[in-house]
Amino acid sequence: MNPDIQRERKNASFDVEKLTHILDGGPEKTRRRREIELLVINDPDFQHEDLNFLSRSERYDRAVKKSAQMIQKLREYNIADPEEIYCYKSCVHCGRPEPLDLHLGMFLPTLLNQATPEQMDRFFMPAWNLEIIGTYAQTEIGHVGKTSNHAIVLAQLHSQGRCHGLHAFIVPIRSMSTHEPLPGITVGDIGPKFGFDEVDNGYLKLKNVRIPRENMLMKYAKVEPDGSYVKPPSAKLTYGTMVFIRSMIVGQSARTLAKACIIAIRYSTVRHQSEIRPGEPEPQILDYQTQQYKLFPLLATAYAFHFVGQYMNNTYHRITGDISQGDFSELPELHALSAGLKAFTTWTASSGIEACRMSCGGHGYSRSSALPDIYVTFTPTCTYEGENTVMMLQTARYLLKSYRQVQAGQRLNGIVSYLNDAEQQRVQARPVSARPTVVNINDLASLVEVYKLRAAKLVELAAKSIQQELQRRKSQEDAWNNSAIDLVRASDAHCHYVVVKLFLAKLGEIGDTAVHSVLSTLALLYALHGIAQNSGDFLQAALLTVPQVLQATVRLKELLSQLRPNAVALVDAFDYRDQMLNSSLGRYDGNVYEHMFDWARSSPLNCTEVHESYHKYLKPLQSKL
Amino acid sequence: MNPDIQRERKNASFDVEKLTHILDGGPEKTRRRREIELLVINDPDFQHEDLNFLSRSERYDRAVKKSAQMIQKLREYNIADPEEIYCYKSCVHCGRPEPLDLHLGMFLPTLLNQATPEQMDRFFMPAWNLEIIGTYAQTEIGHVGKTSNHAIVLAQLHSQGRCHGLHAFIVPIRSMSTHEPLPGITVGDIGPKFGFDEVDNGYLKLKNVRIPRENMLMKYAKVEPDGSYVKPPSAKLTYGTMVFIRSMIVGQSARTLAKACIIAIRYSTVRHQSEIRPGEPEPQILDYQTQQYKLFPLLATAYAFHFVGQYMNNTYHRITGDISQGDFSELPELHALSAGLKAFTTWTASSGIEACRMSCGGHGYSRSSALPDIYVTFTPTCTYEGENTVMMLQTARYLLKSYRQVQAGQRLNGIVSYLNDAEQQRVQARPVSARPTVVNINDLASLVEVYKLRAAKLVELAAKSIQQELQRRKSQEDAWNNSAIDLVRASDAHCHYVVVKLFLAKLGEIGDTAVHSVLSTLALLYALHGIAQNSGDFLQAALLTVPQVLQATVRLKELLSQLRPNAVALVDAFDYRDQMLNSSLGRYDGNVYEHMFDWARSSPLNCTEVHESYHKYLKPLQSKL
Repeated sequence: MNPDIQRERKNASFDVEKLTHILDGGPEKTRRRREIELLVINDPDFQHEDLNFLSRSERYDRAVKKSAQMIQKLREYNIADPEEIYCYKSCVHCGRPEPLDLHLGMFLPTLLNQATPEQMDRFFMPAWNLEIIGTYAQTEIGHVGKTSNHAIVLAQLHSQGRCHGLHAFIVPIRSMSTHEPLPGITVGDIGPKFGFDEVDNGYLKLKNVRIPRENMLMKYAKVEPDGSYVKPPSAKLTYGTMVFIRSMIVGQSARTLAKACIIAIRYSTVRHQSEIRPGEPEPQILDYQTQQYKLFPLLATAYAFHFVGQYMNNTYHRITGDISQGDFSELPELHALSAGLKAFTTWTASSGIEACRMSCGGHGYSRSSALPDIYVTFTPTCTYEGENTVMMLQTARYLLKSYRQVQAGQRLNGIVSYLNDAEQQRVQARPVSARPTVVNINDLASLVEVYKLRAAKLVELAAKSIQQELQRRKSQEDAWNNSAIDLVRASDAHCHYVVVKLFLAKLGEIGDTAVHSVLSTLALLYALHGIAQNSGDFLQAALLTVPQVLQATVRLKELLSQLRPNAVALVDAFDYRDQMLNSSLGRYDGNVYEHMFDWARSSPLNCTEVHESYHKYLKPLQSKL
Repeated sequence: MNPDIQRERKNASFDVEKLTHILDGGPEKTRRRREIELLVINDPDFQHEDLNFLSRSERYDRAVKKSAQMIQKLREYNIADPEEIYCYKSCVHCGRPEPLDLHLGMFLPTLLNQATPEQMDRFFMPAWNLEIIGTYAQTEIGHVGKTSNHAIVLAQLHSQGRCHGLHAFIVPIRSMSTHEPLPGITVGDIGPKFGFDEVDNGYLKLKNVRIPRENMLMKYAKVEPDGSYVKPPSAKLTYGTMVFIRSMIVGQSARTLAKACIIAIRYSTVRHQSEIRPGEPEPQILDYQTQQYKLFPLLATAYAFHFVGQYMNNTYHRITGDISQGDFSELPELHALSAGLKAFTTWTASSGIEACRMSCGGHGYSRSSALPDIYVTFTPTCTYEGENTVMMLQTARYLLKSYRQVQAGQRLNGIVSYLNDAEQQRVQARPVSARPTVVNINDLASLVEVYKLRAAKLVELAAKSIQQELQRRKSQEDAWNNSAIDLVRASDAHCHYVVVKLFLAKLGEIGDTAVHSVLSTLALLYALHGIAQNSGDFLQAALLTVPQVLQATVRLKELLSQLRPNAVALVDAFDYRDQMLNSSLGRYDGNVYEHMFDWARSSPLNCTEVHESYHKYLKPLQSKL
């Protein structure tokens, strides 16, 4: 164990294990998670091989092999709970996507959600047994590939001369016996990407392909044998899965940012460079204020997002029962929230991973740091499952609708109820911007209030922009488009408020004094950092005074020093094993350089002392010139 | 030609060719650049091969081959001017780094700068003829590799029992006849990285390696045969190259961000999606305000940085003569400026490339878009040649020194002279924050003033923070470290001011009315976008009022619409050929989808219809379960 990192652990003020339990959702969950991880780690079939040294075709090959083994072992170990499957799978593939992701994550759930009992018999069990390997094809390019033999194709339904919009159809694409593409089907891999090397995202062309009527997923919408169309009972029935996946992504943002923080913070404690005081030895990088300022707000963010993810997950499960009973009352709010938070958390985590990577200097650029891999694996979340800007505008639509309801005299419930207060102040001729500032910047509850008022103000600004556009005789649609920047800004402020609020709520659940104390510091740091980054909003709305903003930045610096001794313990609490981090810089024992050197030596370019290109090009040139 | 993009070009309000001349520095430079590019494009030895489909070892092999051919052809064509070499080289390697970069960019220039005449004879001509292939080794890991047979090693010089600090030594590392590592030398490739796949960055271990005294580069510092040490006449003598390279990086930031903007903006005009008005056809993505807001400020930034790069280059060449005469008077300012601007421009460009990539949706994630490649090739500039935070702090050191000089009654010249005015206001008991705001947000000159005052205010804030730390009995060094966040912020504001100021200065040089008009719009957009992003700073210092900030954001939206018809013409003016962009999405003709599909079909994973992994893993599993 590197003595620097050992010393860090001794200095922690709280019990790391207790915090891990909070992150997992209880000691029993921690125990079970570790048990599952050990199943993989101790499994001789899953011994580590560095994918960075392989070609893409080899990487795909290894991933298919692992996935096939994984399916067998999940059955062997009788792991069936979705969370436990997710845990096992993440461990097998070290958090990377794999060729069966769309089969497991989209094909099977869509069947469960939209197939009739007859279709379940016909497709689900074969798919469960991997005879049918499915994918989900919504665009011509980007969803299918080499692995699957069936696709759920989202396509326009035409019947009796009318178009009924997008519906889901099961289309066989490869032969069940030879795996060759079926007649009329052109299918293949879309080629190398930024990351996702193990996944065969594909293109698909269908030419004169016919499927039986019974291959349309008809649990809700139907086409009768005579061609007549039956509408689904509610358009919201397919919302559930979408909301669930977006909520999952929020949790994934937290976990991914956590991984990047673990690597950057551990490495910053064993890396020494330059000098603060002349003559003294080179300090640990983490003693530089600029390094703390890069990393600690991100660490606070990882915790904040973790608790938001827990909240989303709990809320989803709480209202799932209602949904299946046909009660959709809570769904619109959760839908709006999951869209915005998906965008808010993925954008923040995506840029945060890169900030962590760059904070590691040149070594962050090496594949051995794992940070490039973490980034390219995560960044597509900003685009898939709803492009982030589109998501922000969806949330804005809900916010604006709520705003108009309040203006029309309705009282709102739930998370947007703050719009009631703002309206009340407007009616009382006390514009939000003129309210007296009684903010205590050391009190998180007080800061939650300020974030709330900021959100209210920005929703109001967006609404006014639309109004002004309408007054210039613009159509509703153009008014909306010409206010889109303001709308995104309002959604962003709304999400930021929710995150701060949920962090505060979480603190209320924590009994252990030492853990409560360190998490309170993190929460305050998160809130004050957001204020410093967006000080213009708070000043513009007169929610904070200039001296308060200055005070916030001073306090922020104090919080950085206060967190410094707990930094390593706080990343340890995420409890990622070395085998899952797969990073030379982020190793638990801090023995970074030895490991990095060993890794480099095993690089394929080093398999000969002299690379063949020397003999082919350089040697002849030297004799010629 | 895609009709959408054709229509865009018809709508432009200015002559693209004229703007290209301004970017190149005159019509003759444009002509010559194109001539050199055609030498490469029409050369059968340099026909395009997609590196994305190759293994790293193959990529390295191709790059060595190209580099060897390039050296021969440069001589054949008699291209010797450094700018022209750079142009030819960029075209051969499509802007990617290559295995001879350190030889050409560090080894040869260091010899030129620090070798004695005798050493020039011994090393320079053999290096010029590629018998000696050199590299530059400053850390154990990260600089050498498979290609080079000599290294300039930066190492501590010990003589007569004393250490004289870092000096440069020429160390042979591989045999000139067999290319095998010499005794005592361990050398190899450091393994795969985020990018730079064609470069064999290396590790190097030296064990009991002896070199003759004459291998120390002794143009300035010397060791006599008896071991006595002679100091260099000035510590600033090695500054020049550093300043030059950092200035080059500023230009590179501009060019790289320009490439990303070309791809994203062209693709946004041929891509149609969703709807603004119901019933109408899907609009071009670029008609969405949010898309304009993502891309146009970056486009303005690319232009701004381009002009800053031109200024840095001109200034460097102007004062180079003085430097060689021993007149270093202008060097400290340029040194400070090049450090800060290197950091400011690379950070902005690096995150800007990713913003461009994400603005292309899922297709930006494909290697065929070229955007992943552009990012991984560029992002190391944030770390190498002076890590960005360290660079910002260097600039801050100069700013603080200047601030103290003013306080001590000195009057400053040059770019920091604004600190004089701020001090004058302080003496007159008119704190900067209380000055009346007479800002015209439509007038760039007025905005330059506001940026200047913001910088002055933030320098003052940083100075005050240090003072307060000192009053708490902190040492100078701790006071500095505890104010580092404020110092970086001050440098950032200083650089931002310089960029806006230089953009304004450039407008003064432009005669053509139509070009002047569109560049003025870009400049105003750049300045107002910066104000919107940093509104807190301007409000805090009372440089702008709340209504002015609101007005700025409204004006910003108007500028987006105003630029819309010129967007494609503005990216065309950068004049990057398809062969150099190498992007399906960024093609001049806009025929994106056909090209992307062709590219995908040629991916190695598609060389068989059924991948072997099916037979190895999936088929057996299907029969087993």
